Amino acid sequence: MHILITGAAGMIGRKLTARLVRDGVLNGRTIDRMTLTDIVAPELPAGATFAVATAASDLAMAGAAARAIAHRPDVIFHLAAIVSGEAEADFEKGYRVNFGGTRELLEAIRLAGGGYRPKLVFASSIAVFGAPFPDAIGDEFFLTPLTSYGTQKAIGELLLADYTRRGFLDGIGIRLPTIVVRPGKPNKAASGFFSSIIREPLNGQEAVLPVSEDVRHWFASPRAAVGFLLHAADLKGDRLGARINLTMPGLTCTVGEEIAALARVAGADVARRIRREPDATVAKIVAGWPQNFDACRATALGFRAETSFDDIVRAHIEDELGGRIGA
Amino acid sequence: MHILITGAAGMIGRKLTARLVRDGVLNGRTIDRMTLTDIVAPELPAGATFAVATAASDLAMAGAAARAIAHRPDVIFHLAAIVSGEAEADFEKGYRVNFGGTRELLEAIRLAGGGYRPKLVFASSIAVFGAPFPDAIGDEFFLTPLTSYGTQKAIGELLLADYTRRGFLDGIGIRLPTIVVRPGKPNKAASGFFSSIIREPLNGQEAVLPVSEDVRHWFASPRAAVGFLLHAADLKGDRLGARINLTMPGLTCTVGEEIAALARVAGADVARRIRREPDATVAKIVAGWPQNFDACRATALGFRAETSFDDIVRAHIEDELGGRIGA
Repeated sequence: MHILITGAAGMIGRKLTARLVRDGVLNGRTIDRMTLTDIVAPELPAGATFAVATAASDLAMAGAAARAIAHRPDVIFHLAAIVSGEAEADFEKGYRVNFGGTRELLEAIRLAGGGYRPKLVFASSIAVFGAPFPDAIGDEFFLTPLTSYGTQKAIGELLLADYTRRGFLDGIGIRLPTIVVRPGKPNKAASGFFSSIIREPLNGQEAVLPVSEDVRHWFASPRAAVGFLLHAADLKGDRLGARINLTMPGLTCTVGEEIAALARVAGADVARRIRREPDATVAKIVAGWPQNFDACRATALGFRAETSFDDIVRAHIEDELGGRIGA
Repeated sequence: MHILITGAAGMIGRKLTARLVRDGVLNGRTIDRMTLTDIVAPELPAGATFAVATAASDLAMAGAAARAIAHRPDVIFHLAAIVSGEAEADFEKGYRVNFGGTRELLEAIRLAGGGYRPKLVFASSIAVFGAPFPDAIGDEFFLTPLTSYGTQKAIGELLLADYTRRGFLDGIGIRLPTIVVRPGKPNKAASGFFSSIIREPLNGQEAVLPVSEDVRHWFASPRAAVGFLLHAADLKGDRLGARINLTMPGLTCTVGEEIAALARVAGADVARRIRREPDATVAKIVAGWPQNFDACRATALGFRAETSFDDIVRAHIEDELGGRIGA
């Protein structure tokens, strides 16, 4: 089993790599090779019992995608993308990387020849949806992205479905919820506060909350996201039929419920490290985001997310803090 | 008012051209110039009271789209596409023309500079939808094309919406029903029989019906299609909001109801010129096509189609046969 991960240097890519190194198997088959690419060469993971190659690769560049699949990986996790904010700020770069890179990868697979037909797991996003929304977005709700990033992901889904229908590959697109708690430093993403109001207090630091506590959104943990990717890789295409792009399960909760979960898991003192500092710009952006889904199909297909925010907080403490809460 | 029509040599393009030549105005403004492009140079229309330029143009070729918009048309009707059957038979050509041509046109507009921001009416298709369907497909049903043609149209819709949201142009995508009665010779398209069972009998010829009379589909006349395009050109973008792609109204009817309408309008003898010759391949293709829509938004925005198939038959007799039925 040879696995290729694009975007392997990103947060999800690193966690997926670590999990595969730990498991040593995917879809019941022993992993004997792994290729990791990103715009900068990903770090070699420690402790791998199989060969790992890493490479800096811009998939949108001519020939890069063909090189990335030169050794015919059996499973490809296509995570490479620039984030929403950057795709909005730089129109051309967003289309080049998020659309062009995906299309080049699909084309390289189509043109590889020799009956090559890998499993391709595409990380899509709930950004393919745009307000106004029903109370819960069902599996047949239409895609009306309100960002260039969401548009690029939606186009990726459509291409993946057509290439799969044509038999060039065996694709599945999974729309990830907003992933919390993201490890690492605070960033400038408009969605950053969903993570930082949990992460910083647990590190003994103050966090800033720019929206009101009744803001509702759709979440899963990084651990759940890795679980989605692995489960998607193992799903047989005939279980999906023609509709290969799926909204992943998650949990809907308000910022207030996030904070209450933090207090339950880590204590009221920790939860008091959140400072309210309303920001109208952030509030306006967040108001256009989806709040709740009814992810029936993915649930029926065996995808599983956390069902309480307490579990998301605990997953962060276990996976990032060695089980300990900072003073 | 300068108008560009791409795909102007096609059936709808020619009818739209003729209508604009006859009207001499669009959106209440006098037409003073028209540019007609297609893969072969369209014929010069007779009787135009304004300048008409025609050109052979493959929009997917480098520089072609920039040349097509060099004189800054105020309104662009983007009809150019290869049809569903050809896009399915030739994967690369379909993506090159239907996707590449559209993207090149949008990019040429974006890069034109000088505040250029034309109205662009994009002819999309109900092929963006794929079975299984609800009883009537609503305005929020998701796009799951089951053909490469439908995929290319769906991608065109997404790009058009993002370029519009970004302010590069003022776009509207209209999903045309199956257009009947198509004038001209019978063709090999799987949908051809919907037209030929009306057209050939009215010309005194026999037509072959390859499916059962209970097959249901979604129709509008060529005259209605031209009306959609003109109405779309005149719709202000602020009436659409972010959701600029619309399913056009039409009428749902069965093949049996088509034949009954033909008998009512032209007589039972004419309707008897249809020979039943079931074709399992055609029946299977048609079974995946949409049958009925609930086109609320477009109707509320003033788009109008025929409400009885009798009217579609009459429109054909008036527009193509000079009001006379062949013996």
